Amino acid sequence: MAFNAKIKAEILKTLIDVTSPLVSEVKLNIKKEGVSLRAVDPAHVALVDLHIGKEAFEEYRADETELGIDIDKLSGILKLSSSNDIVSLEYDEKDNRLIVKIGNLTRKMALIDTTGMPDPKMPTLDLPGKVVLKASEITKGIKASEAVSDHLALIVTEDSFEVFAEGDTDIVNLKISKDDLIEHSTDGKYKSLFSIDYLSNMVKPVKSDEVVTINVGNDNPTRLEFDIADSKGHVTYLLAPRIEAE
Amino acid sequence: MAFNAKIKAEILKTLIDVTSPLVSEVKLNIKKEGVSLRAVDPAHVALVDLHIGKEAFEEYRADETELGIDIDKLSGILKLSSSNDIVSLEYDEKDNRLIVKIGNLTRKMALIDTTGMPDPKMPTLDLPGKVVLKASEITKGIKASEAVSDHLALIVTEDSFEVFAEGDTDIVNLKISKDDLIEHSTDGKYKSLFSIDYLSNMVKPVKSDEVVTINVGNDNPTRLEFDIADSKGHVTYLLAPRIEAE
Amino acid sequence: MAFNAKIKAEILKTLIDVTSPLVSEVKLNIKKEGVSLRAVDPAHVALVDLHIGKEAFEEYRADETELGIDIDKLSGILKLSSSNDIVSLEYDEKDNRLIVKIGNLTRKMALIDTTGMPDPKMPTLDLPGKVVLKASEITKGIKASEAVSDHLALIVTEDSFEVFAEGDTDIVNLKISKDDLIEHSTDGKYKSLFSIDYLSNMVKPVKSDEVVTINVGNDNPTRLEFDIADSKGHVTYLLAPRIEAE
Repeated sequence: MAFNAKIKAEILKTLIDVTSPLVSEVKLNIKKEGVSLRAVDPAHVALVDLHIGKEAFEEYRADETELGIDIDKLSGILKLSSSNDIVSLEYDEKDNRLIVKIGNLTRKMALIDTTGMPDPKMPTLDLPGKVVLKASEITKGIKASEAVSDHLALIVTEDSFEVFAEGDTDIVNLKISKDDLIEHSTDGKYKSLFSIDYLSNMVKPVKSDEVVTINVGNDNPTRLEFDIADSKGHVTYLLAPRIEAE
Repeated sequence: MAFNAKIKAEILKTLIDVTSPLVSEVKLNIKKEGVSLRAVDPAHVALVDLHIGKEAFEEYRADETELGIDIDKLSGILKLSSSNDIVSLEYDEKDNRLIVKIGNLTRKMALIDTTGMPDPKMPTLDLPGKVVLKASEITKGIKASEAVSDHLALIVTEDSFEVFAEGDTDIVNLKISKDDLIEHSTDGKYKSLFSIDYLSNMVKPVKSDEVVTINVGNDNPTRLEFDIADSKGHVTYLLAPRIEAE
Repeated sequence: MAFNAKIKAEILKTLIDVTSPLVSEVKLNIKKEGVSLRAVDPAHVALVDLHIGKEAFEEYRADETELGIDIDKLSGILKLSSSNDIVSLEYDEKDNRLIVKIGNLTRKMALIDTTGMPDPKMPTLDLPGKVVLKASEITKGIKASEAVSDHLALIVTEDSFEVFAEGDTDIVNLKISKDDLIEHSTDGKYKSLFSIDYLSNMVKPVKSDEVVTINVGNDNPTRLEFDIADSKGHVTYLLAPRIEAE
């Protein structure tokens, strides 16, 4: 049950930013090929799946094991690091602690019992409307929508990708034509409604010039994906749709 | 009743910064030669008059009309723009909405009924003490005064311009001699008292190295003016005096 | 009873940052050779002793006197200055005010009656464990400890300096070996416990690349010292130990 790894602080910070909007505790699955986690928020509206390949680590030696992490604690200790600091992680089996070292600073962090923690399945979904775009664009659409409603529609058509929100008096619309998308593929028009709060949390950890892939169906969940750790890691969010009240 | 214009985001932001401390809704007067507004705060202590000439716009096509604007809404959508973004404004007469476009983002904003909204007159005032100075100087005097009182005196003498505030135990005084003023003209000593809160809000939107003109009489309102939009627009504030309790 | 001095704003700001965590009013002792203060916090846990030599002033003319200063007031007026502004301080004996001038701005600040204000003695202490290190290192240790406890141990051994904090489940440890310390001298192992809140306030005013000297005994106060004003001034903190509950 050995786990002994070194990684840049900024990659661990991304793990925290991606996970903390949904859950406060998470089970890290440690495997020979890297670290992964999958968690569902308490309301069962959103799922996060994150993988960091062992190539993203400076050093990596691991048997297969699970570590129950308190996200707030890990976040607190990482706030004392700079982005380029190397963080050493070591599993102390005797005391069931994670030993986190940043330079000459050591935090021995009690681990959480993973016995009761769920192992969510990633559902198979048919989401035929797919677009790839810069994170800053979808972020702008989400922020503008917040001002008029608590939900918005993601729409993929044969010509464009649209974010659309309608309030009592005002309308927000972000329309990106096919040619301005990095990728675009669909066999028709697909549209689903989503909670703006959840979407807003999901795009927050993505840097504005990074690239996200969005898959949309009809009244179906959306899948939002992006790479992390110089493409040596990957995040997938699934977000359940809201049902159109009409 | 057409109105179709394009303008740099930062000029619209200035309009909002100048107006929002006094009112939350405002009537924009659209004319062939530009856009203007005039509003009085609910307590009838301060008046703002703002003009943006059509030369300040990238594009400008307008019939004469009035648009009732919710300042918070316009401010919200502009927060998603950068200073140099071009904002397109279009009046949608059918739905009585203002269509605000920033890049591929569209906000259709319901307009407010202007029927009940006032058309304040700009009073004619004899304010013989006039000084022109850098905004940072008057700002410093106002901020220092806040610590000792809720009102201050603006004083123009034949030698200087002074900001003076007196509390129970402490005194604040900013004195700028004639030679350090950009302009100075008076035929004697003029002094009036003003609310520090109001003055503080009025100078907030002015950049610190910009130039403001201040006119002072005896127990009379003060007029505070500055250019905006590369001198293609202008703001005039009038602030009623407080009566010296003695 | 003359006092007439000019000094860089940033040095006065340091005086405020160093003193304000412990007291809100302070007695400045004005002497021919400079300005000093010594104060104890209301709970009698910490003492601050500060000296600014007259060489740190741009101009300095002083008879021996005492000035009772309201720290908040002085802080307020200094917020309107830039670090390199020269602040003029003048004692106005007639009105018992301190006249603070920054450029053309004047604040006449009522002084506090120093009659009742204490003159704390600096106790003689035998603290044989001494280390000199960069402020950023001790700051990191204190911040990390905050997450797990409200107190920490400072430990000087023959090999190292350690900050150690233990909570219910987690442990924080900062260990700097002898060779990584700027200076180190001890005749054995010395360890005392301290309140993290107090320590945190004490290191806050020190810039991260500056150097602090820490003296530790066994269950004895710690002495934390650093230079200010380009080594023309000096600050000494004494902090009483917490008794280990065991």
